[in-house]
Parts: sequence; C-alpha cells; structure tokens
Amino acid sequence: MPASLKDFESVFPRLVDDLKAHCQKYKLPEQALNWFEKSLTHNTLGGKCNRGLSVIDTTQLLLDRTLSDDEFFRAATLGWMIELLQAFFLVSDDIMDSSKTRRGQPCWYLMPTVGMIAINDAFMLESAIYLLLKKYFKQEKYYVDVIELFHEVTFQTELGQACDLLTAPEDHVDLDNFSLEKYTFIVIYKTAYYSFYLPVALALHFAGYASEKNLKQAEEILIPMGEYFQVQDDYLDNFADAEVLGKIGTDIQDNKCSWLVNQALKRCSKEQRQVLEENYGKKDRECEKRVKQLFDELELEAVYKEYEDKVVGELREKIANLDESGGLKKGVFEEFLRKIYKRSK
Amino acid sequence: MPASLKDFESVFPRLVDDLKAHCQKYKLPEQALNWFEKSLTHNTLGGKCNRGLSVIDTTQLLLDRTLSDDEFFRAATLGWMIELLQAFFLVSDDIMDSSKTRRGQPCWYLMPTVGMIAINDAFMLESAIYLLLKKYFKQEKYYVDVIELFHEVTFQTELGQACDLLTAPEDHVDLDNFSLEKYTFIVIYKTAYYSFYLPVALALHFAGYASEKNLKQAEEILIPMGEYFQVQDDYLDNFADAEVLGKIGTDIQDNKCSWLVNQALKRCSKEQRQVLEENYGKKDRECEKRVKQLFDELELEAVYKEYEDKVVGELREKIANLDESGGLKKGVFEEFLRKIYKRSK
Repeated sequence: MPASLKDFESVFPRLVDDLKAHCQKYKLPEQALNWFEKSLTHNTLGGKCNRGLSVIDTTQLLLDRTLSDDEFFRAATLGWMIELLQAFFLVSDDIMDSSKTRRGQPCWYLMPTVGMIAINDAFMLESAIYLLLKKYFKQEKYYVDVIELFHEVTFQTELGQACDLLTAPEDHVDLDNFSLEKYTFIVIYKTAYYSFYLPVALALHFAGYASEKNLKQAEEILIPMGEYFQVQDDYLDNFADAEVLGKIGTDIQDNKCSWLVNQALKRCSKEQRQVLEENYGKKDRECEKRVKQLFDELELEAVYKEYEDKVVGELREKIANLDESGGLKKGVFEEFLRKIYKRSK
Repeated sequence: MPASLKDFESVFPRLVDDLKAHCQKYKLPEQALNWFEKSLTHNTLGGKCNRGLSVIDTTQLLLDRTLSDDEFFRAATLGWMIELLQAFFLVSDDIMDSSKTRRGQPCWYLMPTVGMIAINDAFMLESAIYLLLKKYFKQEKYYVDVIELFHEVTFQTELGQACDLLTAPEDHVDLDNFSLEKYTFIVIYKTAYYSFYLPVALALHFAGYASEKNLKQAEEILIPMGEYFQVQDDYLDNFADAEVLGKIGTDIQDNKCSWLVNQALKRCSKEQRQVLEENYGKKDRECEKRVKQLFDELELEAVYKEYEDKVVGELREKIANLDESGGLKKGVFEEFLRKIYKRSK
C-alpha cells in the first residue's frame, strides 16, 4: 500500500528536533534557533510531497513488501531530504522570479521581517540535508554515493535554473533566444533530475540495488518521463480548464520559455511570428488572447496529443524492455507513469 | 618560503576549465556556460587570498619542506575551495546587506543584467567546491572527512550569518538585542571557522596529520585567534587612521553589533546609555561623532589594548603548550599570530 501523506508528515517533527539539537550543541542563541524552526516549517511543509513519498513507495516496490517502522522512518528521512532540497530551491526561485505566493501562503521572503534573510534561510535548508544524512546514514556503505548524488543533482538543478533565467528574463522579451534545445535542457536539468530521478536513485541505494546498471536504466526512463511531465505542465497552463487545474495559467504573460511557444516558433509563418513578437510576454489580457488564438491556429493541442502518444509509447517500450535481473522492477516506472498519464491538473 | 599570490592565482584557470568541462558534459548551452565563467572570475578573483594561501603555507610548515609541483597544485586547489566558499558567502551577503562595492568593483548583483540571478550564481560557486573535491580527491582516504568538514563549516558560517542578521537588522536599532555573548557567537561562527580553522584543518588532512587530537588542538587555538582578529577589525573600524586602513569605518552608522558597542553597553551609565540609544545606527555624521566621543569617554582604546594583551598572552601560552608529537607544529600558529598581531590594517 502506498505511504500516506499523513504518515510521511509525522516523521518531520523528529527531523526538526534533530536539526535544532545540532544547533544547540553550537549554543546558537534562541532567537536564531526559533527563526530556523519557523523557516523549516514554513518552507518544507504544506506541499503534496510527491517526491518524498515516492522514495517510500519505490522502496516498497523494490523490496516487494511493506517496511518496518524503522525502515519507514529512514526511507521517509531520505524523502524529506528531497523536500528540503526543493524548499532550498523554491525559497530562492521565488526571490529570483519575484513570485508572490507559494502553496497558498505568501512567499517566505515576503513574510513580515524576512526579506533578504530568506537567502541565508535557503542555504540552511540545503545544509539540513547533509546534517540528516550524516546523522542517519553515515554507517551505510552507500553514504558517500548518496552525498555525491545530492551534490550532482543540486548542481544539475542550478544549471537548469541558470539557463532558464538567462533564456527568459522577466523584463526582456527576445524570442530569438528561445529554442527547443534550450527548452529541453531547462526542463531536464531544472526539474527532471531532482523530481523524477532522485527519488528512485535514493530508493535504489536504500534497498541495496543501486548498481551502475540499475541507476542508468532508471535515468534513461525517468529523465524523458520528467521531460514529458513538464511538457504536460506547459500544455495544461494554456489548454486546461482553470477550474480543474486550480489556477489560471500565466506563462504567456510571464514570457516563459514554454513548450507551446517553442512549438509555435517552429511552425509559424513570417506573419504569425510577427504576432508572437508583438504579443508574447506582455502583461496585457488582449495580447495574451492574441497569442492563445495563434496557438489554436497552429493546432498546438493536436501537436501535443501527438507528442504525448509518441513519448508515452516510447516510455512503455523502455519499461517493457527493462532488465529486472538486478532487482530493479518495471512496476516502479509503471507507477510513476500511471500517476501522470493524461492528468488534467 | 611562503607561496606567492601569483603562483596561487596561476592555478585558478585550470580549475575554471575543469568546471566548464563538467558543464559541457551536460551540454549546457553556451550562453549559460559563459555566464558561469564570468561569475567564477568576478567573484573568486581579486582578493588577497589569505585563506587559500594559508593552506599551502601550513602544508609546507607541517611537512617541513617545499612542495612538488603536483603537491602545490593540489594544496592550491584545496585553497581555492575556501575562496569559492567565501565567494558563495560574499555574493549573497552583499545582497542581504545591500552592499554597493566589493574589492573595488560593483557587487556582483549590481553588475549589468545580473540582479537576483546572483543568488543562483552563489549556489553554483558552492557546488564548484564539491565538483573539484570529487575530481581531485575522491581517491584519498580523507575524502569523506573533507566533504563533511566543508558541510560543517558551511553550516556554522550560515548560523553566524543568521544570528548577525537577526541581531543587527539594517533598518531597526534595538540595543537591548545586543550582547557580548551574541557578539562572540557571531564572530566565531560567521568568520573564525571558515577563515582560521578551515585552512589548517584542510592542510592537516592533506599532509596526513588530521588526527582527532590535532584537529582539536588546532581548533582550540584558531577559534580564539579568529575571534581576536574580528575584535581587531571592529577596533580598527573606529580607531585606525583611515589613510592606513584604506577605508572609512561605517560600523556606527550601520548599526553593527560590534565589539566596541558591546563594550560600551557593558560599561556605560544610564545617561551614557541614553546617548547610545539616541545616536547609534543613525545615518548621520553628527550622531556618529557623538558615539565616537562616548567611546573615547569610556576609554575603549585602553580597554581594547588590555583585551589584546590578555588574549595574545593566552594564545602564546596555548601555542607553547602544544603537543607536537603527532605532527602538528607550533610554527603554524606562530605564523598566523605574527600576521595579525598589532596589525594596523
């Protein structure tokens, strides 16, 4: 049975206590100690925790059994490390993107008295990963591998963010700067590695099946799957029912280097390109409408459906051909695909 | 013979090439690759590199010989990792403190087109440490220890910065919030660990003398020495000749939780406290003058001289009592102390 969010969340207070105990060893003044706890809670809790939960679910699938209480705690701790990594990225991304809200609350840097202290708070969320790793996994033979995995995935995500920020600056629209190659780099590095590959790689280490071959097989399925997930996100931003999606898409007004605008640029006539130049990335409802109309003219909904059929076909084939002899299981990837295939939100 | 800044700097281009090669393996688009190189150069070069150089000098003292070319390169690489760590902190501290210049140039976040992208650039400077560590030191038995050392010192510095930001916010003066205990925590955690302990701890690992006892002995001398260094800094900010110091002190106007204001708070009468309340942390030359006058009335120059005599005496005693039987050398600490004792800038 998949782990529940409630069970996963019940582990978090113990980790907060561990982190606070570490600070107290250093005699950190109380004001700063309370601040750290508030930052941990505000920035790490409140999401759906899909990434963290999938460490537990993948471990159960790999071991083909439910976990003992201690195993559950340890798998959940690895899961919380991904959530901490994500919190580190989101706190800082929100500053870089001038975002206003996150998970229905004001962004951390916009909370009273926080401001740019949020940058140092983001660093501390990242540091928390390695403190917990040392506390609970130092004795494992895969300890160094997992440290290196977090370092590598962190750097990959930073490269994706760097490329995204340089390709689509908020204040300067330049469609010549967009390309499907850059798009693919951005989504793979900024999202796919930490959201799709990392949870499974961690579960493989924890379950004792992290051979080079298994890690490679997992990467070869999960990276294209993460890319597909982000293409979906971009598709839904424009084509989904806002009621069902739970939010109103803003990619066009925000000058996002999205899958749709890149497909449009690839397919448009000289005149249509002119329409994009004049209307994309403008904070104006009429301009946005004109771009939406162009996306319809170019039949991007159909282009998306075709892409989806193709990529899901390829993913299913890769899963079918998976070598399970080293302990990796097709079910892991079937479960990931099941959760995202034809999602509407 | 101590290493020269020129020789140390000559190593850096090779490390930049290594980092770029790693990015190219990931097919990072050229725009982002060039950006990373510019950030590395702007933010890591241009300082005195005292921390980096002292890894090489300490290694030579410990081994009691000059280093081979390969040893020099490897010790310098460890030194550059401290400089990268410092670059990571300085880029982000400058944003948090709204600083304007750094090493005679505009702060990175104030350079054209940079802005808040600087936050992600800071992250990438930190990531560079672990990439280089893996490339050049993975085969060493002390590899994990050095990773953990960087993690721990990074977290310690973040705690120091957190406490500093909460104790002396730029815009809100509250002298009740200051205390010598907080002051000591801030300078030890924000500066002493990464500037004094880290270079020697790295040299001990590299030279093969990083026993628990030697690391402890080094910490017990270098942390008070780093505290003394920062107290000097605060003393010089007010009492040094601006011509010799090369800058004009701004701690009083900037509401800094400095050693001097904490000594003043400890020694002042009710009336004098009132003077501090009314004049400290105000962006006003007359208020600043009034505080300087109070510092003179309280004879803080003499208080400092007494502190200096006491702490240097204690440091010399600890150095004299050092157990050298495990390979650690008194000369390492004598050299650190010689460089800072009675400095005027």
